[in-house]
Amino acid sequence: EERNDRQLLHEEWARYSAFYKYQPIDLIRKYFGEKIGLYFAWLGVYTQLLVPASIVGIIVFGYGVATVDTDVPSLEMCDERLNFTMCPLCDGACDFWQLSTACGTARASHLFDNPATVFFAIFMSLWAAMFLEHWKRRQISLSFSWDLTGIEEDEAQVSPGADDVVFSQVAKEKLTWKDRLPGYCINVSSILFMFGLTFSAVFGVIIYRITVSALMAMSPDPETKSNVRVTVTATAVIINLVVILILDEIYGAVAVWLTELEIPKTETTFEERLILKAFLLKFMNAYAPIFYVAFFKGRFAGRPGNYVYVFNDYRMEECAPGGCLIELCIQLSIIMLGKQLIQNNIFEIGIPKLKKLLRVLKEKGEAEEQREEQRSRPPQQWNLDYALAPFEGLTPEYMEMIIQFGFVSLFVASFPLAPAFALLNNVIEIRLDAKKFVTELRRPVAIRAKDIGIWYNILSGMGKFSVIINAFVISFTSDFIPRLVYQYMYSPSGTMHGFIDHTLSYFNVSNFKPGTSPHSSLLGDITVCRYKDYREPPWSPEAYQFSKQYWCVLAARLAFVILFQNLVLFLSLLVAWVIPDVPKTVVEQLKREKTLLVDVFLREEKEKFQLIQSLFVKDASLSSERHGATLSCKYELT
Amino acid sequence: EERNDRQLLHEEWARYSAFYKYQPIDLIRKYFGEKIGLYFAWLGVYTQLLVPASIVGIIVFGYGVATVDTDVPSLEMCDERLNFTMCPLCDGACDFWQLSTACGTARASHLFDNPATVFFAIFMSLWAAMFLEHWKRRQISLSFSWDLTGIEEDEAQVSPGADDVVFSQVAKEKLTWKDRLPGYCINVSSILFMFGLTFSAVFGVIIYRITVSALMAMSPDPETKSNVRVTVTATAVIINLVVILILDEIYGAVAVWLTELEIPKTETTFEERLILKAFLLKFMNAYAPIFYVAFFKGRFAGRPGNYVYVFNDYRMEECAPGGCLIELCIQLSIIMLGKQLIQNNIFEIGIPKLKKLLRVLKEKGEAEEQREEQRSRPPQQWNLDYALAPFEGLTPEYMEMIIQFGFVSLFVASFPLAPAFALLNNVIEIRLDAKKFVTELRRPVAIRAKDIGIWYNILSGMGKFSVIINAFVISFTSDFIPRLVYQYMYSPSGTMHGFIDHTLSYFNVSNFKPGTSPHSSLLGDITVCRYKDYREPPWSPEAYQFSKQYWCVLAARLAFVILFQNLVLFLSLLVAWVIPDVPKTVVEQLKREKTLLVDVFLREEKEKFQLIQSLFVKDASLSSERHGATLSCKYELT
Repeated sequence: EERNDRQLLHEEWARYSAFYKYQPIDLIRKYFGEKIGLYFAWLGVYTQLLVPASIVGIIVFGYGVATVDTDVPSLEMCDERLNFTMCPLCDGACDFWQLSTACGTARASHLFDNPATVFFAIFMSLWAAMFLEHWKRRQISLSFSWDLTGIEEDEAQVSPGADDVVFSQVAKEKLTWKDRLPGYCINVSSILFMFGLTFSAVFGVIIYRITVSALMAMSPDPETKSNVRVTVTATAVIINLVVILILDEIYGAVAVWLTELEIPKTETTFEERLILKAFLLKFMNAYAPIFYVAFFKGRFAGRPGNYVYVFNDYRMEECAPGGCLIELCIQLSIIMLGKQLIQNNIFEIGIPKLKKLLRVLKEKGEAEEQREEQRSRPPQQWNLDYALAPFEGLTPEYMEMIIQFGFVSLFVASFPLAPAFALLNNVIEIRLDAKKFVTELRRPVAIRAKDIGIWYNILSGMGKFSVIINAFVISFTSDFIPRLVYQYMYSPSGTMHGFIDHTLSYFNVSNFKPGTSPHSSLLGDITVCRYKDYREPPWSPEAYQFSKQYWCVLAARLAFVILFQNLVLFLSLLVAWVIPDVPKTVVEQLKREKTLLVDVFLREEKEKFQLIQSLFVKDASLSSERHGATLSCKYELT
Repeated sequence: EERNDRQLLHEEWARYSAFYKYQPIDLIRKYFGEKIGLYFAWLGVYTQLLVPASIVGIIVFGYGVATVDTDVPSLEMCDERLNFTMCPLCDGACDFWQLSTACGTARASHLFDNPATVFFAIFMSLWAAMFLEHWKRRQISLSFSWDLTGIEEDEAQVSPGADDVVFSQVAKEKLTWKDRLPGYCINVSSILFMFGLTFSAVFGVIIYRITVSALMAMSPDPETKSNVRVTVTATAVIINLVVILILDEIYGAVAVWLTELEIPKTETTFEERLILKAFLLKFMNAYAPIFYVAFFKGRFAGRPGNYVYVFNDYRMEECAPGGCLIELCIQLSIIMLGKQLIQNNIFEIGIPKLKKLLRVLKEKGEAEEQREEQRSRPPQQWNLDYALAPFEGLTPEYMEMIIQFGFVSLFVASFPLAPAFALLNNVIEIRLDAKKFVTELRRPVAIRAKDIGIWYNILSGMGKFSVIINAFVISFTSDFIPRLVYQYMYSPSGTMHGFIDHTLSYFNVSNFKPGTSPHSSLLGDITVCRYKDYREPPWSPEAYQFSKQYWCVLAARLAFVILFQNLVLFLSLLVAWVIPDVPKTVVEQLKREKTLLVDVFLREEKEKFQLIQSLFVKDASLSSERHGATLSCKYELT
């Protein structure tokens, strides 16, 4: 009983060793207010639901590992006897190459690109729907037990720009659309500019990859040559990551500035608009390179003899021979893990520590003269607390989690381990945030809130968007559909044998444009090379046109998207319908409360009636003493 | 002031001449209760929103009429010089024929199958979303002005089966799942059986069409032969219609019986389950033949030389040469109009009149002995009213409208005039229902209801379903996509010239199976005939296999479905987001009410406090008289 709430929170909640425990949500709410309480409750539900997702993800990955040695396509790719001579990967400097040298990526691909992934994508779409439903229930339970049902947003609370002189002057008169127009124009153009910036960054990295690969391929050193792909991919992703981290900080600041320009009326509108803008910018920033790899990379590279060039000199890049999915997987995992590690360690631990150090140093100088009095008595808790960093809102915390939710839902078809990594991160994140709130920040002003607000809409929008993205990843980025089509339409034996041969088109070396054929070849005299595409062979009357297989596979891919999307939509509706929004206990409790309230009301009315009666009938001064107490009892107004 | 509510309703509302007037919803609610009030309010919103839909639909149809003379594909089909010799439509008895003889259907097709239809389909999907949003707003306004917000379904009200002896005995003890299991089993199997019945009816009509066509084609009379298609189509649709009308009545009764078997606990659950079952059965019943024509007819007919046969003798039917869309349109319009006309005239006017007559006759016989007393005084209003038919619930009224909403939304891409016909019907329907409620039925017991209940879910589900159905109708039933593909991928001139030639495949007459080629031909010596499909010509190495064009068109069709569905989903979300659920006036009103309530509460508390004070301070018997009145004033509890 002698420990105060803060000490209790510190001992029971804000420690890594408590990671397995449920959070003391009611105490958090008591100490920090509803808004922060809801954040931790939400984070708790999310983390808890990541557990089954992680387990299924690990099983799916395990299935990939277990079947990699029996997977016919990757066995065929690794089989040197099949002797597929591939067309060179760059003009002039690159030689023809044997497909079997790409064995490693083929095997790695299979880990993420197998039939279990399709199941996992459906599972995760439903998981997202389930998560939203669960959170709705939890929110309703909490708003019931915390008595938040009656709260309306306090409309009078003016936006934080109010301490700005210009703002408060303007705010006095009602703003017309003419006053607001410039703000909106700057907003739209700035956001478009930021989008442009993001795309330029992505394009810049593409150019980097293309030029460096070309330069390295020309190098006479064979060691350099053989490491081209690994070096370039790794450095490019790291550049991407750094760009994302830097732009993330810039965009955060820009979003605040833009929202202030709009001069929203209330605190709530301010926050909502800020969140929406910041989310849009940060989402684009984090996902643009991933979208590029998933849906655009290698699709505009042309074909041997008719490649697409950028800046007249550099061939557009293609995917690794194992397919684009493995590159997507690398991109995704590095950006996800890098973002989490760096943001957690540097932005959430390092920078606050640094700021604290600076503040302490600065205050030391200022407090030089006051030192005398301070020395006389021990420092008070409020002085110590004042030295802590100010609380800067929950938006960054939510934003980090929502972007992570994107990694877990949007592209989960290509990286089944994402939920496991997210779980690992969140278990740490909860305690890290808890420590920060309890020990590093000044105790924030408690704010009431009846729900998590616009974040729910963003989550639900992302859940919807993830269905179509996953459908496209499975059907267009992975090799799932071509394999099915081959097995059921083209395979002579009904098995996967011959699949690799079927996906490779023929190219007659004499059709190379002058100067683009390899200068010299170690593989001897090659007349026909192969490339991955469905095109007519050189001896067909429609040489190098898309073949019938191409259209057939395309139709199958599109049919799969329709099937997947509608199946998941239907199942999600079913999930939402099966899980009732209001938990049964709450319904019963509410009913009981209502009955109780009616009883109380009736009793009060009866007593009032008796009082009046007694006043008229009996001696008034006597009876009034007896009933005075009854009258003063509180009426509850719901 | 001397007219009572019923007379007022009769004069202002229940007359056809008042069709242009807004309905006196508040009066309807006052006289009939909330539930019936909500029905008419809903019908009003629906009818009102049908006006813009009808106008756009008529414009779209007008566009078809205006462009029919300049439409290249139908001009080409009518051009006798192009001389397409088509393969025979039946084995042996049928001759080869010239495509130009199908000119009429080609032109008719264009009326419904033109680019404006695509726009209209998108428009109508958004219209459905808009309708739902508008109704939500209206419902919230009404529930505010009728003070329905606090209503909870009266859970204690037992289901209508309660007067059944068996039921009430069982209801005494709590039913376990073991008691309910047989009911559920009977339910599921009965519903499956009904589905089977519906499908059999559809299949029966198909068989009728196939056999009668074959028999008529064999007839020596040339008059009979030339009218085959018209006669068979017309009679078949009429049979369909009759079957639908009969099964509709049977299914309604079966649904009631099945729901009683389930022994639902309350009136509300009973109604919901009944509605769901009845809707499922009637929906299947009304739409099964339409679905068949839209998506299955002609797709399993095989190709010349390799037709599909049913019962070993009869070739599967194909669509008319103008395309399946025109058949869909005929089917849709006849079933929709027939259902409306017959149900309105016979079931809603004729049968009640007949029943009334029977009742009057019956009562005349019974009342023979009481005639003496009755003659002495004029008949009282309550006696006259007792002679009216009893009220049988709103379910049939809603059901009729919901099935109509299906015609307006589900297949609107093939029949842009549907909204106009629905509007025409509803303008009459409102007044017909009004007349019925005011003059033909006993005044129903007023039932409170806070919304239209499960009907809203059904409407919203239909809205969602209509998106995918319309996408498929446009891309698979109409010729929109093949035309686009031809124009942008195959046309040498970039125009539609040559489209008809491109859609017809070649067939070598010598490849007919023995006995299936025409016995004699008026067109002379034919070696090659044409048929509508994308297949390789006889001189190709893969003769009669699906050609590259087939897969290409298929891919385009599927891509269109994805595009259409996601575009409409996105726009619908936008519509739902732009139209706020709660109208601004209501929000403001609610705020004002809340402030008022707080004021009243504070005043009351203050007065109470003053009363107590005065009781203690002043002379008690004097002050009590003055404040007694204040105390008795009602506390409002929200």
